[in-house]
Amino acid sequence: MKRNTFDFFFPLRVRYSEIDAQGVVFNAHYLTYFDTALTEYLRFLDYDYMGAVKSKGIDFHLVKSTIEYLAPVCFDDLIEIGVRAKQIGNTSITWELGIFREKSDRCLTRGEIIWVCARPGGNCSCPLPPELVDRLSGI
Amino acid sequence: MKRNTFDFFFPLRVRYSEIDAQGVVFNAHYLTYFDTALTEYLRFLDYDYMGAVKSKGIDFHLVKSTIEYLAPVCFDDLIEIGVRAKQIGNTSITWELGIFREKSDRCLTRGEIIWVCARPGGNCSCPLPPELVDRLSGI
Amino acid sequence: MKRNTFDFFFPLRVRYSEIDAQGVVFNAHYLTYFDTALTEYLRFLDYDYMGAVKSKGIDFHLVKSTIEYLAPVCFDDLIEIGVRAKQIGNTSITWELGIFREKSDRCLTRGEIIWVCARPGGNCSCPLPPELVDRLSGI
Amino acid sequence: MKRNTFDFFFPLRVRYSEIDAQGVVFNAHYLTYFDTALTEYLRFLDYDYMGAVKSKGIDFHLVKSTIEYLAPVCFDDLIEIGVRAKQIGNTSITWELGIFREKSDRCLTRGEIIWVCARPGGNCSCPLPPELVDRLSGI
Repeated sequence: MKRNTFDFFFPLRVRYSEIDAQGVVFNAHYLTYFDTALTEYLRFLDYDYMGAVKSKGIDFHLVKSTIEYLAPVCFDDLIEIGVRAKQIGNTSITWELGIFREKSDRCLTRGEIIWVCARPGGNCSCPLPPELVDRLSGI
Repeated sequence: MKRNTFDFFFPLRVRYSEIDAQGVVFNAHYLTYFDTALTEYLRFLDYDYMGAVKSKGIDFHLVKSTIEYLAPVCFDDLIEIGVRAKQIGNTSITWELGIFREKSDRCLTRGEIIWVCARPGGNCSCPLPPELVDRLSGI
Repeated sequence: MKRNTFDFFFPLRVRYSEIDAQGVVFNAHYLTYFDTALTEYLRFLDYDYMGAVKSKGIDFHLVKSTIEYLAPVCFDDLIEIGVRAKQIGNTSITWELGIFREKSDRCLTRGEIIWVCARPGGNCSCPLPPELVDRLSGI
Repeated sequence: MKRNTFDFFFPLRVRYSEIDAQGVVFNAHYLTYFDTALTEYLRFLDYDYMGAVKSKGIDFHLVKSTIEYLAPVCFDDLIEIGVRAKQIGNTSITWELGIFREKSDRCLTRGEIIWVCARPGGNCSCPLPPELVDRLSGI
Protein backbone atom coordinates (compact mmCIF):
# COMPACT_ATOMS: atom_id res chain seq x y z
CA MET A 1 0.00 0.00 0.00
CA LYS A 2 1.40 3.32 -1.10
CA ARG A 3 1.18 6.65 0.66
CA ASN A 4 -0.72 8.11 -2.30
CA THR A 5 -3.58 5.72 -1.55
CA PHE A 6 -4.62 8.40 0.94
CA ASP A 7 -5.64 12.03 0.69
CA PHE A 8 -5.97 12.59 4.41
CA PHE A 9 -3.34 11.98 7.08
CA PHE A 10 -3.52 12.49 10.83
CA PRO A 11 -0.11 12.98 12.48
CA LEU A 12 0.77 11.86 15.98
CA ARG A 13 3.79 11.11 18.09
CA VAL A 14 4.11 7.75 19.87
CA ARG A 15 3.82 8.13 23.67
CA TYR A 16 6.06 6.34 26.13
CA SER A 17 2.94 4.78 27.67
CA GLU A 18 2.20 3.06 24.36
CA ILE A 19 5.37 1.05 23.96
CA ASP A 20 6.08 -2.33 25.48
CA ALA A 21 9.15 -4.08 26.85
CA GLN A 22 10.48 -4.54 23.31
CA GLY A 23 10.47 -0.77 22.83
CA VAL A 24 7.77 -0.90 20.14
CA VAL A 25 4.11 0.12 20.17
CA PHE A 26 2.04 -2.56 21.90
CA ASN A 27 -0.26 -4.16 19.33
CA ALA A 28 -3.58 -3.00 20.84
CA HIS A 29 -2.70 0.69 20.63
CA TYR A 30 -2.89 0.68 16.84
CA LEU A 31 -6.64 0.38 17.17
CA THR A 32 -6.61 3.51 19.35
CA TYR A 33 -4.56 5.29 16.68
CA PHE A 34 -7.03 4.18 14.00
CA ASP A 35 -9.99 5.29 16.12
CA THR A 36 -8.41 8.70 16.71
CA ALA A 37 -7.56 9.12 13.02
CA LEU A 38 -11.16 8.25 12.04
CA THR A 39 -12.47 10.90 14.46
CA GLU A 40 -10.13 13.44 12.89
CA TYR A 41 -11.10 12.41 9.36
CA LEU A 42 -14.78 12.98 10.12
CA ARG A 43 -13.88 16.38 11.62
CA PHE A 44 -11.90 17.16 8.44
CA LEU A 45 -15.00 16.24 6.37
CA ASP A 46 -16.97 18.54 8.67
CA TYR A 47 -19.26 15.64 9.58
CA ASP A 48 -20.77 15.96 13.04
CA TYR A 49 -20.63 12.38 14.32
CA MET A 50 -21.85 13.15 17.84
CA GLY A 51 -24.58 15.40 16.48
CA ALA A 52 -25.81 12.62 14.19
CA VAL A 53 -25.88 10.19 17.09
CA LYS A 54 -27.92 12.62 19.17
CA SER A 55 -30.24 14.22 16.63
CA LYS A 56 -30.89 11.41 14.16
CA GLY A 57 -30.94 8.48 16.51
CA ILE A 58 -28.32 6.56 14.59
CA ASP A 59 -25.01 5.14 15.64
CA PHE A 60 -22.12 3.29 14.07
CA HIS A 61 -21.10 -0.13 15.32
CA LEU A 62 -17.62 -1.40 14.77
CA VAL A 63 -18.06 -4.94 13.48
CA LYS A 64 -14.58 -5.93 12.32
CA SER A 65 -10.98 -4.73 12.66
CA THR A 66 -7.95 -6.10 10.87
CA ILE A 67 -4.38 -5.00 11.50
CA GLU A 68 -1.30 -6.04 9.56
CA TYR A 69 1.92 -5.21 11.39
CA LEU A 70 4.47 -4.68 8.60
CA ALA A 71 7.28 -2.94 10.50
CA PRO A 72 7.71 -1.80 14.10
CA VAL A 73 6.78 1.68 15.31
CA CYS A 74 8.92 2.95 18.20
CA PHE A 75 8.84 5.42 21.09
CA ASP A 76 8.80 9.06 20.02
CA ASP A 77 8.28 8.20 16.33
CA LEU A 78 6.33 10.81 14.43
CA ILE A 79 3.81 8.90 12.36
CA GLU A 80 1.07 9.84 9.93
CA ILE A 81 -2.10 7.81 9.73
CA GLY A 82 -3.76 7.76 6.32
CA VAL A 83 -7.54 7.23 6.27
CA ARG A 84 -9.96 6.63 3.40
CA ALA A 85 -13.34 5.04 2.84
CA LYS A 86 -12.42 2.00 0.77
CA GLN A 87 -15.96 0.83 0.26
CA ILE A 88 -19.27 2.58 0.94
CA GLY A 89 -22.17 0.16 1.12
CA ASN A 90 -25.82 0.77 1.81
CA THR A 91 -25.54 0.33 5.57
CA SER A 92 -21.79 -0.05 6.09
CA ILE A 93 -18.43 1.61 5.46
CA THR A 94 -15.09 -0.15 5.11
CA TRP A 95 -12.25 2.14 6.17
CA GLU A 96 -8.69 1.57 5.06
CA LEU A 97 -5.87 2.91 7.21
CA GLY A 98 -2.12 3.06 6.77
CA ILE A 99 0.65 4.24 9.07
CA PHE A 100 3.72 5.92 7.59
CA ARG A 101 6.71 7.86 8.86
CA GLU A 102 6.99 11.46 7.67
CA LYS A 103 7.98 11.70 4.00
CA SER A 104 8.39 7.94 3.78
CA ASP A 105 6.41 5.81 1.35
CA ARG A 106 6.88 2.64 3.35
CA CYS A 107 3.70 1.49 5.06
CA LEU A 108 4.42 0.36 8.63
CA THR A 109 0.95 -0.83 9.58
CA ARG A 110 -2.14 -1.51 7.49
CA GLY A 111 -5.64 -1.53 8.92
CA GLU A 112 -9.17 -2.19 7.86
CA ILE A 113 -12.16 -1.21 9.98
CA ILE A 114 -15.80 -2.00 9.16
CA TRP A 115 -18.60 0.13 10.58
CA VAL A 116 -22.28 -0.70 10.33
CA CYS A 117 -24.91 1.99 10.77
CA ALA A 118 -27.55 1.06 13.35
CA ARG A 119 -30.21 2.49 15.61
CA PRO A 120 -28.98 2.65 19.22
CA GLY A 121 -30.19 -0.33 21.20
CA GLY A 122 -31.22 -2.11 18.06
CA ASN A 123 -29.51 -4.89 16.22
CA CYS A 124 -30.74 -4.05 12.73
CA SER A 125 -28.55 -2.08 10.38
CA CYS A 126 -29.98 1.02 8.77
CA PRO A 127 -28.93 3.14 5.75
CA LEU A 128 -25.88 5.38 6.10
CA PRO A 129 -26.79 9.06 6.62
CA PRO A 130 -26.77 10.75 3.17
CA GLU A 131 -24.73 13.73 4.50
CA LEU A 132 -21.93 11.35 5.40
CA VAL A 133 -22.09 9.51 2.07
CA ASP A 134 -22.03 12.85 0.21
CA ARG A 135 -18.99 14.04 2.11
CA LEU A 136 -17.15 10.75 1.63
CA SER A 137 -17.92 10.70 -2.09
CA GLY A 138 -17.02 14.32 -2.66
CA ILE A 139 -13.44 13.96 -1.55
CA MET B 1 3.14 0.22 55.60
CA LYS B 2 2.71 -3.39 56.63
CA ARG B 3 0.61 -6.07 54.99
CA ASN B 4 -1.46 -6.40 58.18
CA THR B 5 -2.70 -2.84 57.66
CA PHE B 6 -5.24 -4.51 55.36
CA ASP B 7 -7.98 -7.10 55.82
CA PHE B 8 -8.92 -7.27 52.17
CA PHE B 9 -6.64 -8.05 49.23
CA PHE B 10 -7.45 -8.28 45.54
CA PRO B 11 -4.98 -10.44 43.56
CA LEU B 12 -4.01 -9.82 39.96
CA ARG B 13 -1.27 -10.70 37.53
CA VAL B 14 0.56 -7.95 35.63
CA ARG B 15 -0.28 -8.01 31.91
CA TYR B 16 2.31 -7.57 29.18
CA SER B 17 0.31 -4.58 27.92
CA GLU B 18 0.93 -2.82 31.23
CA ILE B 19 4.72 -2.76 31.25
CA ASP B 20 6.91 -0.20 29.57
CA ALA B 21 10.27 -0.28 27.84
CA GLN B 22 12.00 -0.68 31.21
CA GLY B 23 10.08 -3.91 31.81
CA VAL B 24 8.14 -2.46 34.75
CA VAL B 25 4.51 -1.42 35.13
CA PHE B 26 3.96 2.00 33.53
CA ASN B 27 3.08 4.46 36.27
CA ALA B 28 -0.48 5.26 35.14
CA HIS B 29 -1.62 1.64 35.36
CA TYR B 30 -1.36 1.64 39.15
CA LEU B 31 -4.45 3.86 39.20
CA THR B 32 -6.26 1.25 37.12
CA TYR B 33 -5.17 -1.42 39.61
CA PHE B 34 -6.43 0.73 42.49
CA ASP B 35 -9.74 1.39 40.74
CA THR B 36 -10.21 -2.32 40.07
CA ALA B 37 -9.34 -3.23 43.67
CA LEU B 38 -11.84 -0.65 44.99
CA THR B 39 -14.57 -2.15 42.80
CA GLU B 40 -13.76 -5.59 44.18
CA TYR B 41 -13.68 -4.30 47.77
CA LEU B 42 -17.18 -2.85 47.40
CA ARG B 43 -18.33 -6.17 45.93
CA PHE B 44 -16.74 -7.96 48.89
CA LEU B 45 -18.66 -5.62 51.24
CA ASP B 46 -21.77 -6.49 49.23
CA TYR B 47 -22.31 -2.80 48.48
CA ASP B 48 -24.10 -2.19 45.22
CA TYR B 49 -22.25 0.84 43.81
CA MET B 50 -24.03 0.91 40.47
CA GLY B 51 -27.38 0.37 42.17
CA ALA B 52 -26.74 3.34 44.48
CA VAL B 53 -25.83 5.52 41.53
CA LYS B 54 -29.03 4.57 39.73
CA SER B 55 -31.58 4.33 42.53
CA LYS B 56 -30.42 7.00 44.98
CA GLY B 57 -29.18 9.61 42.58
CA ILE B 58 -25.75 9.82 44.18
CA ASP B 59 -22.32 9.34 42.75
CA PHE B 60 -18.74 9.36 43.95
CA HIS B 61 -16.23 11.78 42.51
CA LEU B 62 -12.56 11.03 42.67
CA VAL B 63 -10.96 14.25 43.89
CA LYS B 64 -7.38 13.24 44.65
CA SER B 65 -4.98 10.35 43.99
CA THR B 66 -1.52 9.88 45.41
CA ILE B 67 0.88 7.10 44.47
CA GLU B 68 4.23 6.33 46.05
CA TYR B 69 6.34 3.99 43.93
CA LEU B 70 8.50 2.13 46.45
CA ALA B 71 9.78 -0.76 44.33
CA PRO B 72 9.17 -1.84 40.74
CA VAL B 73 6.46 -4.29 39.73
CA CYS B 74 7.32 -6.39 36.67
CA PHE B 75 5.66 -8.38 33.88
CA ASP B 76 3.84 -11.50 35.04
CA ASP B 77 4.23 -10.60 38.73
CA LEU B 78 1.41 -11.87 40.90
CA ILE B 79 0.47 -9.00 43.16
CA GLU B 80 -2.09 -8.45 45.89
CA ILE B 81 -3.69 -5.06 46.35
CA GLY B 82 -4.72 -4.25 49.90
CA VAL B 83 -7.65 -1.84 50.34
CA ARG B 84 -9.09 -0.14 53.41
CA ALA B 85 -11.07 2.97 54.27
CA LYS B 86 -8.48 5.01 56.14
CA GLN B 87 -10.83 7.85 56.99
CA ILE B 88 -14.61 8.09 56.71
CA GLY B 89 -15.83 11.68 56.74
CA ASN B 90 -19.32 13.09 56.46
CA THR B 91 -19.21 13.44 52.68
CA SER B 92 -15.90 11.80 51.75
CA ILE B 93 -13.86 8.62 52.09
CA THR B 94 -10.08 8.37 52.05
CA TRP B 95 -8.98 4.97 50.77
CA GLU B 96 -5.55 3.55 51.48
CA LEU B 97 -4.08 1.01 49.09
CA GLY B 98 -0.93 -1.09 49.16
CA ILE B 99 0.56 -3.47 46.63
CA PHE B 100 2.43 -6.57 47.83
CA ARG B 101 3.83 -9.72 46.31
CA GLU B 102 2.33 -12.97 47.55
CA LYS B 103 3.41 -13.81 51.12
CA SER B 104 5.73 -10.82 51.20
CA ASP B 105 5.41 -8.07 53.75
CA ARG B 106 7.26 -5.53 51.60
CA CYS B 107 4.98 -2.83 50.23
CA LEU B 108 5.83 -2.14 46.55
CA THR B 109 3.41 0.71 45.94
CA ARG B 110 1.36 2.84 48.30
CA GLY B 111 -1.73 4.71 47.25
CA GLU B 112 -4.29 7.11 48.64
CA ILE B 113 -7.55 7.88 46.88
CA ILE B 114 -10.12 10.43 48.04
CA TRP B 115 -13.75 10.11 46.98
CA VAL B 116 -16.42 12.73 47.59
CA CYS B 117 -20.08 11.82 47.50
CA ALA B 118 -22.12 14.07 45.19
CA ARG B 119 -25.33 14.29 43.24
CA PRO B 120 -24.73 13.64 39.53
CA GLY B 121 -24.44 16.87 37.59
CA GLY B 122 -24.05 18.84 40.79
CA ASN B 123 -20.95 20.25 42.35
CA CYS B 124 -22.06 20.06 45.96
CA SER B 125 -20.99 17.20 48.14
CA CYS B 126 -23.67 15.24 49.99
CA PRO B 127 -23.57 12.80 52.93
CA LEU B 128 -22.20 9.32 52.33
CA PRO B 129 -24.93 6.67 52.02
CA PRO B 130 -25.45 5.10 55.49
CA GLU B 131 -25.41 1.56 54.04
CA LEU B 132 -21.90 2.13 52.80
CA VAL B 133 -20.73 3.69 56.06
CA ASP B 134 -22.22 0.75 57.99
CA ARG B 135 -20.48 -1.78 55.82
CA LEU B 136 -17.15 0.05 56.03
CA SER B 137 -17.40 0.39 59.81
CA GLY B 138 -18.45 -3.20 60.36
CA ILE B 139 -15.34 -4.70 58.91
CA MET C 1 -18.08 -20.42 16.52
CA LYS C 2 -19.09 -22.71 19.36
CA ARG C 3 -17.66 -22.85 22.86
CA ASN C 4 -16.56 -26.45 22.29
CA THR C 5 -14.14 -25.22 19.64
CA PHE C 6 -11.86 -24.57 22.61
CA ASP C 7 -10.30 -26.74 25.29
CA PHE C 8 -8.69 -23.88 27.17
CA PHE C 9 -10.40 -20.80 28.58
CA PHE C 10 -8.93 -17.88 30.49
CA PRO C 11 -11.47 -16.04 32.68
CA LEU C 12 -11.38 -12.33 33.42
CA ARG C 13 -13.66 -9.59 34.61
CA VAL C 14 -14.04 -6.39 32.56
CA ARG C 15 -12.49 -3.39 34.35
CA TYR C 16 -14.12 0.03 34.53
CA SER C 17 -11.03 1.48 32.84
CA GLU C 18 -11.75 -0.67 29.77
CA ILE C 19 -15.21 0.57 28.90
CA ASP C 20 -16.03 3.63 26.86
CA ALA C 21 -18.78 6.24 26.90
CA GLN C 22 -21.23 3.69 25.49
CA GLY C 23 -20.64 1.46 28.52
CA VAL C 24 -19.03 -1.29 26.44
CA VAL C 25 -15.42 -2.47 26.17
CA PHE C 26 -13.45 -0.10 23.92
CA ASN C 27 -12.44 -1.99 20.79
CA ALA C 28 -8.65 -1.89 21.34
CA HIS C 29 -8.84 -3.67 24.69
CA TYR C 30 -9.90 -6.94 23.07
CA LEU C 31 -6.35 -7.24 21.75
CA THR C 32 -5.09 -6.87 25.31
CA TYR C 33 -7.51 -9.61 26.40
CA PHE C 34 -6.27 -11.85 23.58
CA ASP C 35 -2.63 -11.16 24.44
CA THR C 36 -3.26 -11.97 28.10
CA ALA C 37 -5.14 -15.16 27.22
CA LEU C 38 -2.29 -16.28 24.93
CA THR C 39 0.22 -15.74 27.75
CA GLU C 40 -1.94 -17.85 30.05
CA TYR C 41 -2.39 -20.57 27.42
CA LEU C 42 1.40 -20.90 27.03
CA ARG C 43 1.68 -21.08 30.83
CA PHE C 44 -1.01 -23.78 30.84
CA LEU C 45 1.02 -25.71 28.23
CA ASP C 46 4.03 -25.24 30.48
CA TYR C 47 5.89 -23.52 27.65
CA ASP C 48 8.45 -21.00 28.86
CA TYR C 49 8.04 -18.15 26.37
CA MET C 50 10.44 -15.75 28.06
CA GLY C 51 12.98 -18.53 28.57
CA ALA C 52 12.85 -19.36 24.85
CA VAL C 53 13.37 -15.72 23.95
CA LYS C 54 16.39 -15.50 26.24
CA SER C 55 18.05 -18.89 25.82
CA LYS C 56 17.32 -19.78 22.20
CA GLY C 57 17.54 -16.38 20.64
CA ILE C 58 14.13 -16.60 19.05
CA ASP C 59 11.12 -14.38 19.31
CA PHE C 60 7.57 -14.27 18.02
CA HIS C 61 6.37 -11.37 15.93
CA LEU C 62 2.71 -10.57 15.74
CA VAL C 63 2.03 -10.05 12.04
CA LYS C 64 -1.77 -9.89 11.84
CA SER C 65 -4.76 -9.49 14.15
CA THR C 66 -8.41 -9.77 13.21
CA ILE C 67 -11.32 -9.08 15.55
CA GLU C 68 -15.00 -9.62 14.84
CA TYR C 69 -17.24 -7.84 17.32
CA LEU C 70 -20.38 -9.99 17.45
CA ALA C 71 -22.05 -8.66 20.61
CA PRO C 72 -21.07 -6.04 23.18
CA VAL C 73 -19.15 -6.85 26.36
CA CYS C 74 -19.97 -4.57 29.30
CA PHE C 75 -18.49 -3.31 32.57
CA ASP C 76 -18.09 -5.99 35.24
CA ASP C 77 -18.95 -8.82 32.83
CA LEU C 78 -17.24 -12.09 33.66
CA ILE C 79 -15.93 -13.42 30.39
CA GLU C 80 -13.98 -16.48 29.33
CA ILE C 81 -11.50 -16.30 26.50
CA GLY C 82 -11.06 -19.50 24.54
CA VAL C 83 -7.68 -20.03 22.85
CA ARG C 84 -6.47 -22.66 20.40
CA ALA C 85 -3.82 -23.03 17.72
CA LYS C 86 -5.92 -23.15 14.58
CA GLN C 87 -3.02 -23.74 12.24
CA ILE C 88 0.60 -24.63 12.96
CA GLY C 89 2.89 -23.85 10.03
CA ASN C 90 6.61 -24.27 9.66
CA THR C 91 7.46 -20.78 10.92
CA SER C 92 4.07 -19.43 12.01
CA ILE C 93 1.07 -20.14 14.25
CA THR C 94 -2.47 -18.94 13.65
CA TRP C 95 -4.32 -18.59 16.96
CA GLU C 96 -8.09 -18.56 17.16
CA LEU C 97 -9.76 -16.83 20.08
CA GLY C 98 -13.36 -16.55 21.21
CA ILE C 99 -14.95 -14.61 24.06
CA PHE C 100 -17.95 -16.09 25.87
CA ARG C 101 -19.94 -15.36 29.00
CA GLU C 102 -19.89 -18.04 31.68
CA LYS C 103 -21.92 -21.12 30.69
CA SER C 104 -23.11 -19.42 27.52
CA ASP C 105 -22.46 -20.86 24.09
CA ARG C 106 -22.87 -17.50 22.34
CA CYS C 107 -19.61 -16.13 21.03
CA LEU C 108 -19.36 -12.37 21.76
CA THR C 109 -16.05 -11.67 20.02
CA ARG C 110 -13.99 -13.74 17.61
CA GLY C 111 -10.30 -13.18 17.06
CA GLU C 112 -7.47 -14.46 14.92
CA ILE C 113 -3.84 -13.69 15.68
CA ILE C 114 -0.89 -14.72 13.52
CA TRP C 115 2.59 -15.08 15.02
CA VAL C 116 5.75 -15.60 13.03
CA CYS C 117 8.85 -17.01 14.69
CA ALA C 118 11.95 -14.88 14.09
CA ARG C 119 15.40 -14.13 15.38
CA PRO C 120 15.44 -10.88 17.38
CA GLY C 121 16.63 -7.98 15.25
CA GLY C 122 16.22 -10.02 12.12
CA ASN C 123 13.50 -9.94 9.54
CA CYS C 124 13.70 -13.57 8.46
CA SER C 125 11.31 -16.08 9.86
CA CYS C 126 12.74 -19.25 11.42
CA PRO C 127 11.20 -22.64 12.32
CA LEU C 128 8.93 -22.82 15.36
CA PRO C 129 10.64 -24.32 18.42
CA PRO C 130 9.86 -28.08 18.47
CA GLU C 131 8.98 -27.98 22.20
CA LEU C 132 6.19 -25.54 21.43
CA VAL C 133 4.93 -27.53 18.45
CA ASP C 134 4.92 -30.71 20.56
CA ARG C 135 2.95 -29.07 23.32
CA LEU C 136 0.45 -27.56 20.90
CA SER C 137 -0.02 -30.86 19.09
CA GLY C 138 -0.35 -32.91 22.26
CA ILE C 139 -3.36 -31.08 23.53
CA MET D 1 -3.21 27.60 40.44
CA LYS D 2 -3.17 30.13 37.63
CA ARG D 3 -2.27 29.61 34.00
CA ASN D 4 0.61 32.10 34.36
CA THR D 5 2.30 29.70 36.79
CA PHE D 6 3.58 28.05 33.61
CA ASP D 7 5.77 29.14 30.71
CA PHE D 8 5.44 25.92 28.76
CA PHE D 9 2.25 24.23 27.64
CA PHE D 10 1.77 21.03 25.67
CA PRO D 11 -1.55 20.84 23.80
CA LEU D 12 -3.49 17.66 23.17
CA ARG D 13 -6.98 16.52 22.30
CA VAL D 14 -8.75 13.95 24.46
CA ARG D 15 -9.18 10.63 22.62
CA TYR D 16 -12.36 8.58 22.69
CA SER D 17 -10.34 5.69 24.10
CA GLU D 18 -9.51 7.79 27.16
CA ILE D 19 -13.00 8.50 28.41
CA ASP D 20 -15.08 6.27 30.62
CA ALA D 21 -18.77 5.46 30.92
CA GLN D 22 -19.38 8.89 32.51
CA GLY D 23 -18.02 10.58 29.37
CA VAL D 24 -15.01 12.02 31.20
CA VAL D 25 -11.32 11.15 31.08
CA PHE D 26 -10.66 8.02 33.18
CA ASN D 27 -8.50 9.01 36.15
CA ALA D 28 -5.40 6.99 35.23
CA HIS D 29 -4.96 8.69 31.85
CA TYR D 30 -3.98 11.99 33.48
CA LEU D 31 -0.69 10.35 34.41
CA THR D 32 -0.17 9.49 30.75
CA TYR D 33 -0.90 13.11 29.84
CA PHE D 34 1.60 14.30 32.45
CA ASP D 35 4.24 11.84 31.24
CA THR D 36 3.75 12.96 27.64
CA ALA D 37 3.92 16.64 28.62
CA LEU D 38 7.16 16.05 30.57
CA THR D 39 8.71 14.36 27.52
CA GLU D 40 7.73 17.37 25.39
CA TYR D 41 9.05 19.83 27.98
CA LEU D 42 12.45 18.14 27.97
CA ARG D 43 12.40 18.24 24.16
CA PHE D 44 11.53 21.96 24.35
CA LEU D 45 14.51 22.47 26.69
CA ASP D 46 16.61 20.56 24.15
CA TYR D 47 17.57 18.04 26.83
CA ASP D 48 18.31 14.61 25.45
CA TYR D 49 16.73 12.31 28.05
CA MET D 50 17.35 9.07 26.18
CA GLY D 51 20.89 10.13 25.35
CA ALA D 52 21.60 10.81 29.04
CA VAL D 53 20.24 7.42 29.99
CA LYS D 54 22.46 5.73 27.41
CA SER D 55 25.67 7.76 27.56
CA LYS D 56 25.88 8.78 31.23
CA GLY D 57 24.47 5.71 32.84
CA ILE D 58 21.84 7.61 34.76
CA ASP D 59 18.11 7.29 34.86
CA PHE D 60 15.17 9.01 36.51
CA HIS D 61 12.85 7.08 38.79
CA LEU D 62 9.35 8.29 39.38
CA VAL D 63 8.87 8.11 43.14
CA LYS D 64 5.60 9.93 43.73
CA SER D 65 2.61 11.21 41.75
CA THR D 66 -0.24 13.34 43.04
CA ILE D 67 -3.32 14.32 41.03
CA GLU D 68 -6.06 16.69 42.10
CA TYR D 69 -9.15 16.41 39.90
CA LEU D 70 -10.72 19.88 40.04
CA ALA D 71 -13.14 19.71 37.11
CA PRO D 72 -13.93 17.05 34.50
CA VAL D 73 -12.21 16.83 31.13
CA CYS D 74 -14.39 15.39 28.35
CA PHE D 75 -14.13 13.64 24.99
CA ASP D 76 -12.67 15.78 22.22
CA ASP D 77 -11.67 18.58 24.63
CA LEU D 78 -8.61 20.50 23.53
CA ILE D 79 -6.47 20.87 26.61
CA GLU D 80 -3.12 22.44 27.38
CA ILE D 81 -0.82 20.90 29.95
CA GLY D 82 1.42 23.35 31.76
CA VAL D 83 4.74 21.99 33.08
CA ARG D 84 7.38 23.53 35.32
CA ALA D 85 10.11 22.39 37.70
CA LYS D 86 8.70 23.50 41.04
CA GLN D 87 11.71 22.41 43.06
CA ILE D 88 15.16 21.32 41.94
CA GLY D 89 17.00 19.39 44.65
CA ASN D 90 20.41 17.79 44.63
CA THR D 91 19.19 14.42 43.41
CA SER D 92 15.50 15.05 42.70
CA ILE D 93 13.09 17.26 40.76
CA THR D 94 9.52 18.09 41.73
CA TRP D 95 7.43 18.84 38.65
CA GLU D 96 4.20 20.79 38.83
CA LEU D 97 1.58 20.26 36.15
CA GLY D 98 -1.72 21.92 35.38
CA ILE D 99 -4.37 21.20 32.78
CA PHE D 100 -6.33 24.08 31.23
CA ARG D 101 -8.73 24.57 28.34
CA GLU D 102 -7.57 26.90 25.60
CA LYS D 103 -7.60 30.56 26.68
CA SER D 104 -9.14 29.64 30.02
CA ASP D 105 -7.50 30.44 33.33
CA ARG D 106 -9.40 27.74 35.20
CA CYS D 107 -7.21 24.82 36.22
CA LEU D 108 -9.03 21.52 35.57
CA THR D 109 -6.42 19.15 36.98
CA ARG D 110 -3.36 19.75 39.11
CA GLY D 111 -0.45 17.36 39.30
CA GLU D 112 2.82 16.91 41.10
CA ILE D 113 5.43 14.38 40.00
CA ILE D 114 8.69 13.65 41.83
CA TRP D 115 11.66 12.19 39.97
CA VAL D 116 14.83 10.94 41.62
CA CYS D 117 18.02 10.58 39.64
CA ALA D 118 19.59 7.13 39.97
CA ARG D 119 22.01 4.73 38.34
CA PRO D 120 20.14 1.99 36.44
CA GLY D 121 19.87 -1.17 38.51
CA GLY D 122 20.91 0.69 41.62
CA ASN D 123 18.81 1.96 44.46
CA CYS D 124 20.97 4.93 45.42
CA SER D 125 20.11 8.37 44.21
CA CYS D 126 22.81 10.37 42.43
CA PRO D 127 23.18 14.09 41.59
CA LEU D 128 21.03 15.51 38.79
CA PRO D 129 22.96 15.98 35.52
CA PRO D 130 24.26 19.62 35.43
CA GLU D 131 23.07 20.11 31.82
CA LEU D 132 19.51 19.44 32.93
CA VAL D 133 19.78 21.71 35.98
CA ASP D 134 21.22 24.49 33.77
CA ARG D 135 18.40 24.19 31.28
CA LEU D 136 15.74 24.12 33.98
CA SER D 137 17.25 27.15 35.74
CA GLY D 138 17.73 29.14 32.56
CA ILE D 139 14.11 29.23 31.65
